[in-house]
Amino acid sequence: MLQDLFTPSVQHALDIVGIFVFAISGALLAVRKNFDVFGIAVLAEVTALGGGLFRDLVIGAVPPAAFTDLGYFITPLFAALLVFFLHPEVERTQLAVNIFDAAGLGLFCVAGTTKAYDYGLGLTASAALGLMTAVGGGVLRDIVANEVPSLVRWDRDLYAVPAIVGATMVALCIRFEMLTAFTSGLAVVTAFVLRLLALHYHWRAPRAWNRRSTAVEAEVEETP
Amino acid sequence: MLQDLFTPSVQHALDIVGIFVFAISGALLAVRKNFDVFGIAVLAEVTALGGGLFRDLVIGAVPPAAFTDLGYFITPLFAALLVFFLHPEVERTQLAVNIFDAAGLGLFCVAGTTKAYDYGLGLTASAALGLMTAVGGGVLRDIVANEVPSLVRWDRDLYAVPAIVGATMVALCIRFEMLTAFTSGLAVVTAFVLRLLALHYHWRAPRAWNRRSTAVEAEVEETP
Amino acid sequence: MLQDLFTPSVQHALDIVGIFVFAISGALLAVRKNFDVFGIAVLAEVTALGGGLFRDLVIGAVPPAAFTDLGYFITPLFAALLVFFLHPEVERTQLAVNIFDAAGLGLFCVAGTTKAYDYGLGLTASAALGLMTAVGGGVLRDIVANEVPSLVRWDRDLYAVPAIVGATMVALCIRFEMLTAFTSGLAVVTAFVLRLLALHYHWRAPRAWNRRSTAVEAEVEETP
Repeated sequence: MLQDLFTPSVQHALDIVGIFVFAISGALLAVRKNFDVFGIAVLAEVTALGGGLFRDLVIGAVPPAAFTDLGYFITPLFAALLVFFLHPEVERTQLAVNIFDAAGLGLFCVAGTTKAYDYGLGLTASAALGLMTAVGGGVLRDIVANEVPSLVRWDRDLYAVPAIVGATMVALCIRFEMLTAFTSGLAVVTAFVLRLLALHYHWRAPRAWNRRSTAVEAEVEETP
Repeated sequence: MLQDLFTPSVQHALDIVGIFVFAISGALLAVRKNFDVFGIAVLAEVTALGGGLFRDLVIGAVPPAAFTDLGYFITPLFAALLVFFLHPEVERTQLAVNIFDAAGLGLFCVAGTTKAYDYGLGLTASAALGLMTAVGGGVLRDIVANEVPSLVRWDRDLYAVPAIVGATMVALCIRFEMLTAFTSGLAVVTAFVLRLLALHYHWRAPRAWNRRSTAVEAEVEETP
Repeated sequence: MLQDLFTPSVQHALDIVGIFVFAISGALLAVRKNFDVFGIAVLAEVTALGGGLFRDLVIGAVPPAAFTDLGYFITPLFAALLVFFLHPEVERTQLAVNIFDAAGLGLFCVAGTTKAYDYGLGLTASAALGLMTAVGGGVLRDIVANEVPSLVRWDRDLYAVPAIVGATMVALCIRFEMLTAFTSGLAVVTAFVLRLLALHYHWRAPRAWNRRSTAVEAEVEETP
């Protein structure tokens, strides 16, 4: 199995770290939206487990890992509790949250691509599912919180590109039979660093090419 | 099979009742949101069947019960029709709707936990999935209606706690091999009564602990 | 297999056409919502593949066709690119988009019903799932874009009814063993023409029957 690149305990620890930091980001949004303690727990669970749950449903790995590994389920509750009691402190460490979230992004895109390929998907589909594993939780978080997903907003720093790069690296490594713990780790680190660079330099993706920008704006007003 | 605690016809009748009352709540929200007759039917179906559909996809019970039992599919349409023609009357009986909805909550958390355990999930995962079966339809209803889910709003009376208690009671009964029609019924009634008490006394869940509440509010304004 | 009504290449070409036009509608909404290039791609993929993905998860056809057929995955990206560079031109051809979207609606409701029946669902459930295949992508598109789904809004021309008619025609043809390439095609064309007529004559579905309309409006204001 490709998944056994790392010893199981290392892989599991990395998964838990990724789940934890994604859960923190969900819990913080819940606090900002003024949700109650259950809302905080719900958003933490959705953000942390949503991407992997979607991946497992698509590849037919039922019941999904989120429901078979107790640690996956309990970690977001712990993150929710932490944010519930300490949220001003946690918010002040937004930099730390961003760094951990970038690490989660890197870990999830690599783990997702590898697991999808293990279940028989093609290379392109595996990379696409790896990307969805990494960004899916955040999209679900924003949908439950009734916000436009941060992923698709033009005024947010690049989030998809680092995950696309990481997932593509894994797919290429599989293609050329070069997938090892080292190359996997390299893909994680590449996605991680790219995300940090995007945050630091505020890299953004372009919006649609408006050759007649004002005219188009007006048009949009008329046809909502 | 654990599910055969009640005679099939009794269990089926209870399911239909739960589906019907959840469908009413979905249809009423659709009327309030000014949706057309298809919107009313869509929201009735989503609310009534969404939680069970999610549970069945997670445990791998495909095709889900919602697509194999015609009664499950038709009941929400009937509820939608009723609300379409009689909604002022139905709204005036909000008390009745709340009581039935509480009954649905109790029935679904117990049935969901039992079915999940039947399909091989662990006790904690089964209870979690029972909770999701009970509250999932309402969350999907609010997402489709483009509202912040009632479940996570701090200004709504406790909804998750009764379902958590009911699902936990079932899990404990399974653990100690005490699950009978009587103890199942007791779990349903406990969740039902807790929800009614929460409605009557306006029990609410706390929001995040604001040690510097005004400062935090201002902070939220600045960082939307 | 019922699905082999058309030669595989014809069926596949029809699927790709349906996916393409749905993707265009998703990409255009993304441009209107001011999303970045990834948002445009995400919304194109969600709109084009969401309905079929849901159908495949429900009937247990995993991995879903969206992840096994590279053409299904790449077509929406191509549509997104097209809209990204040419959106003022594409928007000006709204009529063309509407016509293609109506064709997609017809194709998807027929293909969805047929595939669901192939996987062992009952006739009513198959027709329901055919309807969901046709309209599901659009609902997901609107949810991701944080809008009230166009499907349930009273101020939009009939969209569900043509798909219901098409899906029901297929179910009846299966019931009476009359499903051929010709009758399937007839169902596609019927749904297609009905949708065009609904667009042309602005057919709309009724809202809930307000016998005391003003009183009810006021009531709604008070109990949001």
